[in-house]
Amino acid sequence: MENYRIYLTEEEIPTHYYNLRADMSKKPAPLLNPGTLQPMTAEELKGVFCEELVAQELDNDTRLFEIPEEVREYYKTYRPSPLIRAYNLEKKLGTPARIYYKFEGNNTSGSHKLNSAIAQAYYAKKQGLTGITTETGAGQWGTALSMASAYFGLDCKVFMVKGSYEQKPFRRDVMTTYGASVTPSPSDTTEVGRRILEAFPDTAGSLGCAISEAVEAAVTQEGYRYVLGSVLNQVLLHQSIIGLEAHKAFSKIGESPDIIIGCTGGGSNLGGLIAPFMGEKLRGEKDYRFIAAEPASCPSFTRGKYLYDFCDTGNVCPLAKMYTLGNGFMPAPNHAGGLRFHGMSTILSEIYDQGLMEARAYEQTDVFDAAVTFARAEGILPAPESSHAIRAAIDEAMLCKESGEEKTRYRIL
Amino acid sequence: MENYRIYLTEEEIPTHYYNLRADMSKKPAPLLNPGTLQPMTAEELKGVFCEELVAQELDNDTRLFEIPEEVREYYKTYRPSPLIRAYNLEKKLGTPARIYYKFEGNNTSGSHKLNSAIAQAYYAKKQGLTGITTETGAGQWGTALSMASAYFGLDCKVFMVKGSYEQKPFRRDVMTTYGASVTPSPSDTTEVGRRILEAFPDTAGSLGCAISEAVEAAVTQEGYRYVLGSVLNQVLLHQSIIGLEAHKAFSKIGESPDIIIGCTGGGSNLGGLIAPFMGEKLRGEKDYRFIAAEPASCPSFTRGKYLYDFCDTGNVCPLAKMYTLGNGFMPAPNHAGGLRFHGMSTILSEIYDQGLMEARAYEQTDVFDAAVTFARAEGILPAPESSHAIRAAIDEAMLCKESGEEKTRYRIL
Repeated sequence: MENYRIYLTEEEIPTHYYNLRADMSKKPAPLLNPGTLQPMTAEELKGVFCEELVAQELDNDTRLFEIPEEVREYYKTYRPSPLIRAYNLEKKLGTPARIYYKFEGNNTSGSHKLNSAIAQAYYAKKQGLTGITTETGAGQWGTALSMASAYFGLDCKVFMVKGSYEQKPFRRDVMTTYGASVTPSPSDTTEVGRRILEAFPDTAGSLGCAISEAVEAAVTQEGYRYVLGSVLNQVLLHQSIIGLEAHKAFSKIGESPDIIIGCTGGGSNLGGLIAPFMGEKLRGEKDYRFIAAEPASCPSFTRGKYLYDFCDTGNVCPLAKMYTLGNGFMPAPNHAGGLRFHGMSTILSEIYDQGLMEARAYEQTDVFDAAVTFARAEGILPAPESSHAIRAAIDEAMLCKESGEEKTRYRIL
Repeated sequence: MENYRIYLTEEEIPTHYYNLRADMSKKPAPLLNPGTLQPMTAEELKGVFCEELVAQELDNDTRLFEIPEEVREYYKTYRPSPLIRAYNLEKKLGTPARIYYKFEGNNTSGSHKLNSAIAQAYYAKKQGLTGITTETGAGQWGTALSMASAYFGLDCKVFMVKGSYEQKPFRRDVMTTYGASVTPSPSDTTEVGRRILEAFPDTAGSLGCAISEAVEAAVTQEGYRYVLGSVLNQVLLHQSIIGLEAHKAFSKIGESPDIIIGCTGGGSNLGGLIAPFMGEKLRGEKDYRFIAAEPASCPSFTRGKYLYDFCDTGNVCPLAKMYTLGNGFMPAPNHAGGLRFHGMSTILSEIYDQGLMEARAYEQTDVFDAAVTFARAEGILPAPESSHAIRAAIDEAMLCKESGEEKTRYRIL
């Protein structure tokens, strides 16, 4: 029997990020300046973002970006992450499908977010900045950025969606342990926060709203820039390390997935996971089915429109062409704080619009049922966010079982 | 440069537990029946514990016990655990010492406790039992046993020390997700619990007290047995897998530790970690320094007495000869819920009494300082319990620095 956990060696950690845009014939639409409705220039973006990150954001052509040595060194403290064969889940479901999952939870942030946090903190440090500001929903991104900031000696200000701030006091404590400051959003510490609080005094907040506050906090303070944990091209670029490792691990065991499933809020996890596989599909080298799993309470792909919208609630950010529920959308408080963004990565939006990927929305109760089944079989207690993908994977695995095609070799990432 | 994380392969997972008692010329003192003051017989213990576990408990001579196939299969879902070189911590401290740590936190229980939980649940299932009862302090053991019980389809009743139950509601939720029932202790669901509540209505509870309740719940219900997460010989036997893996990993990279440090409450982590190394020392094959790190608020080794005492507060358990603070000792509520047991493993007590190991007690504030230093350098946020060992390791590493012996090759586990 093949191993449960497939690990690459430290030497096999990818040396370059893969930029999916380079292989897209129709590129994702550019960010627009909300005042002029012209594409945002590098000069305009540099007031908000770190310089090298702006370059990555705007580059639709360079296929590979070298991962800086310092970032690769840090990766070695928690990467490569394992690709795990879910033998016990398969047995419990009685399915002929082969189920694999790439487990990114083995670091203190509890998620894949650290992959981009450490890269972004590195570029901020390199630019000689004092600190960075950001927002966080479920708290994983904020935790990851706190860890990365502590490592590089940067100040870190986190605006945490109020609903999550109240649901997860321990998450907040972890961030402050790493030296970050954490403010529940909307707050009275920013102009945009005060404006939103006046209009919606009882709101539990949203990512879009926390983004507005974090951007304001960055641009109104010398030596600070804003960083974002999802949605942006640069983030998907960094997260390609997930897919690159998974691809290499599959090659190592002579396997190849038929269906690749990821949960999606802003798209960082899904975009990173599928990148090299989607690249093969775009280049016509190989075909895969891709499934985006999102919450029914915030269904950007399945019920949103593909059009230009603000990335934030306070209308201070650029416009992005994306599947969106409208930047005023306030999702009901649920337990998947990381999947509550009103829009979707422009890369994934374009991919989805071209019909290269499917999307499905799931109700929370069905998602939690899947999570409990997975937890009891596999040991690992999955995050509510990841459990959306688990729901989709279990459904697909049960289809394999029902079809009776014993030999169907479905593999689900 | 050598790797950060040293992984064994799944094939290298040990096939046998190592019983340190086999190499002790003076054996740990036997458990005594509190009524007769005679050594507990297998027959007497079988009313409380699973049969095969009783055999392991009483066997001072068999050196190796085969790990059942089913248990080894489960181990593969989260083991081998990595041995990690703390490069970033070393750099931050500016020490010539080489610091390694065996990281057991990469599973949902968040600790080493799963190693023994899965073995104990397996033997309970094999015996045809309906369920098992236990106590938990910090919650890791209860979580581990819930996971193991869910895997083998056993009912699981957990008595959780009230102080921890109130400090850690999420911990409780994890256990119920795995299907366990969780009762704050002392509770009014047992006779002993009611008795303790009457005497100390405002108590935050203790492990000794929760043990009394869990034992009562087991012996008063058909098809149930009691299982324990630390202290007992059987638990240290199962936990030897930690030390066996570490020993193999060091051999693989041609290293050998000079000082081996572990935190200790009941002794399961420390006893498991040091077992094969202490075996070499006992057999005269190799010398190591061992340091037990305990909290100043519950200093069994450094301020306790080596004598026979009850293992629980309610006087329902056998007497064990151990370093003890007295079974009526109620430690102040602190954050290291896993290190609040009034006594200590009889094996470790005997080892310590023979002068084979050092012990140190640490104040919580110093421990937390060490934890923050470690977290910011290494990424991983350590548990309050493990942070006692980190405090000791940092102190030793700073001694290496002060002595100026650049070539001193201290290695700390």
